[in-house]
Amino acid sequence: MPLTQEQLAEIEAQRASPRQTLRAVSEGMEKHLYTAQPVLDHGFVRAIDYMGDDSAIVQAARVSYGAGTKHVQNDEGLIRYLMRHWHSTPFEMCEVKLHIKLPVFVARQWIRHRTANVNEYSARYSILDREFYIPAPEHLAAQSTINNQGRGEVLQGEEAARVLALLKSDAAQMYDNYEAMLSQDGQQGLARELARMNLPMNIYTQWYWKTDLHNLFHFLRLRADSHAQYEIRVYAEAIAAMTADWVPLAYAAFEDYRMGGATLSSKAIDVLKRMLKGEEVTRETSGMSVGEWREFQAVIADPA
Amino acid sequence: MPLTQEQLAEIEAQRASPRQTLRAVSEGMEKHLYTAQPVLDHGFVRAIDYMGDDSAIVQAARVSYGAGTKHVQNDEGLIRYLMRHWHSTPFEMCEVKLHIKLPVFVARQWIRHRTANVNEYSARYSILDREFYIPAPEHLAAQSTINNQGRGEVLQGEEAARVLALLKSDAAQMYDNYEAMLSQDGQQGLARELARMNLPMNIYTQWYWKTDLHNLFHFLRLRADSHAQYEIRVYAEAIAAMTADWVPLAYAAFEDYRMGGATLSSKAIDVLKRMLKGEEVTRETSGMSVGEWREFQAVIADPA
Amino acid sequence: MPLTQEQLAEIEAQRASPRQTLRAVSEGMEKHLYTAQPVLDHGFVRAIDYMGDDSAIVQAARVSYGAGTKHVQNDEGLIRYLMRHWHSTPFEMCEVKLHIKLPVFVARQWIRHRTANVNEYSARYSILDREFYIPAPEHLAAQSTINNQGRGEVLQGEEAARVLALLKSDAAQMYDNYEAMLSQDGQQGLARELARMNLPMNIYTQWYWKTDLHNLFHFLRLRADSHAQYEIRVYAEAIAAMTADWVPLAYAAFEDYRMGGATLSSKAIDVLKRMLKGEEVTRETSGMSVGEWREFQAVIADPA
Amino acid sequence: MPLTQEQLAEIEAQRASPRQTLRAVSEGMEKHLYTAQPVLDHGFVRAIDYMGDDSAIVQAARVSYGAGTKHVQNDEGLIRYLMRHWHSTPFEMCEVKLHIKLPVFVARQWIRHRTANVNEYSARYSILDREFYIPAPEHLAAQSTINNQGRGEVLQGEEAARVLALLKSDAAQMYDNYEAMLSQDGQQGLARELARMNLPMNIYTQWYWKTDLHNLFHFLRLRADSHAQYEIRVYAEAIAAMTADWVPLAYAAFEDYRMGGATLSSKAIDVLKRMLKGEEVTRETSGMSVGEWREFQAVIADPA
Repeated sequence: MPLTQEQLAEIEAQRASPRQTLRAVSEGMEKHLYTAQPVLDHGFVRAIDYMGDDSAIVQAARVSYGAGTKHVQNDEGLIRYLMRHWHSTPFEMCEVKLHIKLPVFVARQWIRHRTANVNEYSARYSILDREFYIPAPEHLAAQSTINNQGRGEVLQGEEAARVLALLKSDAAQMYDNYEAMLSQDGQQGLARELARMNLPMNIYTQWYWKTDLHNLFHFLRLRADSHAQYEIRVYAEAIAAMTADWVPLAYAAFEDYRMGGATLSSKAIDVLKRMLKGEEVTRETSGMSVGEWREFQAVIADPA
Repeated sequence: MPLTQEQLAEIEAQRASPRQTLRAVSEGMEKHLYTAQPVLDHGFVRAIDYMGDDSAIVQAARVSYGAGTKHVQNDEGLIRYLMRHWHSTPFEMCEVKLHIKLPVFVARQWIRHRTANVNEYSARYSILDREFYIPAPEHLAAQSTINNQGRGEVLQGEEAARVLALLKSDAAQMYDNYEAMLSQDGQQGLARELARMNLPMNIYTQWYWKTDLHNLFHFLRLRADSHAQYEIRVYAEAIAAMTADWVPLAYAAFEDYRMGGATLSSKAIDVLKRMLKGEEVTRETSGMSVGEWREFQAVIADPA
Repeated sequence: MPLTQEQLAEIEAQRASPRQTLRAVSEGMEKHLYTAQPVLDHGFVRAIDYMGDDSAIVQAARVSYGAGTKHVQNDEGLIRYLMRHWHSTPFEMCEVKLHIKLPVFVARQWIRHRTANVNEYSARYSILDREFYIPAPEHLAAQSTINNQGRGEVLQGEEAARVLALLKSDAAQMYDNYEAMLSQDGQQGLARELARMNLPMNIYTQWYWKTDLHNLFHFLRLRADSHAQYEIRVYAEAIAAMTADWVPLAYAAFEDYRMGGATLSSKAIDVLKRMLKGEEVTRETSGMSVGEWREFQAVIADPA
Repeated sequence: MPLTQEQLAEIEAQRASPRQTLRAVSEGMEKHLYTAQPVLDHGFVRAIDYMGDDSAIVQAARVSYGAGTKHVQNDEGLIRYLMRHWHSTPFEMCEVKLHIKLPVFVARQWIRHRTANVNEYSARYSILDREFYIPAPEHLAAQSTINNQGRGEVLQGEEAARVLALLKSDAAQMYDNYEAMLSQDGQQGLARELARMNLPMNIYTQWYWKTDLHNLFHFLRLRADSHAQYEIRVYAEAIAAMTADWVPLAYAAFEDYRMGGATLSSKAIDVLKRMLKGEEVTRETSGMSVGEWREFQAVIADPA
């Protein structure tokens, strides 16, 4: 259960008492506030607060560009223009604050996004709960044979059973010993800041995470991408869905230009031009390395 | 007049239509929203949006410290504790967005605070207005004779009149020529991105500026300080007054520990201990430099 | 003259006395150290210090990816791979410190790149020199008729002469009055922090600017781009040439993937696929806006 | 053994071949380069590269303050002045790059210092070594009874033995199972990015960490402090000793004003003034909370 009864009661109370404000309000985001969106087996994402909406982006852009933006007829066109030309500062004028519960190994990857504000639950001050991420069978994958940092096929049969059993029993044992070391029952009790070192990295932690929309998009581009590890991607996807409700125009532009877009090298553009003129270009005549060629093919491949 | 009729009408419209939200609301800040607070002769500060209030700081801290914060009985005590021990991340959970109109030479100093989001009016896209900062007579000061970066006594008589006349006539002439160069009346008209170089640095610009409360406090500590240049200090003071209404507990802690506090070197602490034991310590026996001694005296001086 | 005799003598002294170090050395950058590269009429760029070289990027990447990088056979391949996949942290392991002299209106644009360390000459402490940027006739351009933030044709004949004369006489007059207000000859003398407001934005300032290679590449991509204002682009180009000598492999990858590359939207990629299958796609059947179509055409256009 | 034979050979090679450079050289730092300074049972800190020295700080400050700095007679006085007045930008002009091997729970605390560049060994790409931090008996401490985030007395007798045995056997078992799950011997082999979740947080990781001197000082102030957890403090102390050799003047100023200094609230300063006038002030008459009074007493306490 990701939330305690106490936390659920607090959410109910907060959702029951809307207040008046003169600030920009995003109806799409209001409906998400405080509600925990479950992720993985014990994790969640819930929006705590936000600042701005699509019109706040437009408003900031018009301060910058003054009369220069008047010829762009509508908000959608202006937002697409800003996204296309990497004008990032108007997107920085929106901000979001999320409460996230996640396994430590996911948190370690997440924290590498430095332009954000974070308050993490401290295991120096407090005792962590007995909650561990155990993958669902369909996400228990073998090492990829072609990609050093990826996963391949799903583990089968006995091996899968063995791995799941190990993950569960190791986590349980480590937590038992964590408690045993902390206990002050008939002994001094190890300091919390030391005892925590015996916990495995699939234990859950939680934090408040606050960032602006530009940096959130950067996070989503990397972490909602198909190359991201599944366990962080599901968080990114939950946040992406929320963001689409919060700032629908900006999110649509982001999807078109970033998530669905691709960056081509000058070499790739040259090859494209040759192909458009009817030339049959092969990897050998392209001048690209094997990896570049494979990635280039993926961009222009027809899924049909 | 810092705001156009159009802008005033827009403010009225925004203030007339409160909406419902589930987010944290600061009544103290709501009353400031959109209203322009005049600063200097043509400048202003107005709050456009904010995120969080005193309780948001407390909430974030309790996420971090978990049960460890339960023994602190109330919000005020916890906020003072956080401020005293430089626990800055809970303060980062509040955010504010301001619309500011300010002279370019002030903007150049302000922008050095890097942890903020900025959208400035672009003189490449648009034409700047004919508005210049001309100091009031009581702020027209001579160079300090003891401080390389400060100002001393107020200029008197003919010299003051001469300076004011020069500032006004130079600004007017530069702006006339800016317009003449831009004009497309019977000529091609110089590019805006070039013409702007002829404008003096007391011309007004404007921007949206967004920052978190921790970084705002850092800005206020440096810029609302008595050593800051008067022309930026008045902006900092206007923002400080707004912040006191926005997050009254956090602001009170900031005032006590930062604005009114002082940092002593280990050398100064040693001297203090000797003084508290009754020793008569002089600059010579203190081991401090002349500058350090003067600053130390200012900290412990009795104003009475 | 961008450098004083005193500064030139200092450079000579520094260049005359190499010392021994165990650090990574880039021979290509050593030859640039301290030498001022002239930019515009009074500006310059000179490298003061640097950290790392191409091999430092590779070394950092191998720490991250461990055995996972062993299959990439050589440094060039690995650096290209890192650039292609936006693995930016290894590039952050190189750092450069530059001394730059530049007009204030260029500095105002430059400083918007926040991830850098800056020490600027302070006109509160010190008096600025009588040096102003006056464009060469071939860079005195009219406002673009199609681009709100661009310049069009070069000004001709009398208009050009008139503009140049105005820029020169206004700068001279403002500086004369700056000096007159500062003077303590028979008067108190206005504070420097106030007098500076009478200076136009084509006056030169100078600063030390230090950044890492990843952020430098970001700066170069935006400012060495053909859409950047000429007056900042020439600085970016001078720094780009230096960078090509400093980290030749990284710079070559940057050129191929960033400077010469292009980002396509999902819409543009769909159009490309249709074109590659032989379909004749027009702006109307593309689903793109006029602006997007024009930019897309520019990417795939055959210059021949 | 913190370093492999291969790594030691590489260090020897690098130290054997000094090269010539025109850059600023710090003899004090050159002697540390590449040499691993052991920390904890398997960790280390080693300097890989640096930029600048004490004179680089002075040089940057003189660019900023121009003639305004000439009255400060020497480098030491200027550096102390900069430190005392929180002029941080000249210190940002120095940079250091360290290679650090450290337990994951220490790394999790360390990474919260956001203004730094990091390349960490990736357990998605590669397999972690079998190396765990096991505290020496004298650092195996009980939970503090007065401080929620501190440790108290050293564990005694059987309890200490029990804890050490548990830490060792749990680490060994988890690592055995990590290997068993990864193994491709007769099974598919779990993906590395999943298997790593079974490792406890006292396993060692390593990274390259690069930061500027201003941010390094901030890190040292918090982490070399007596309130920091022992396991990160020993790293901070090792780096502090290195820094004292690298920039001796800046480090001495840092020690006097930051490490040995104290910040007093306005309330505390008022009490001090009363005490200096001979008044006997008690906690009750001070207006301070219990915590504030205790901390204030610690500042002015005479250790003798």
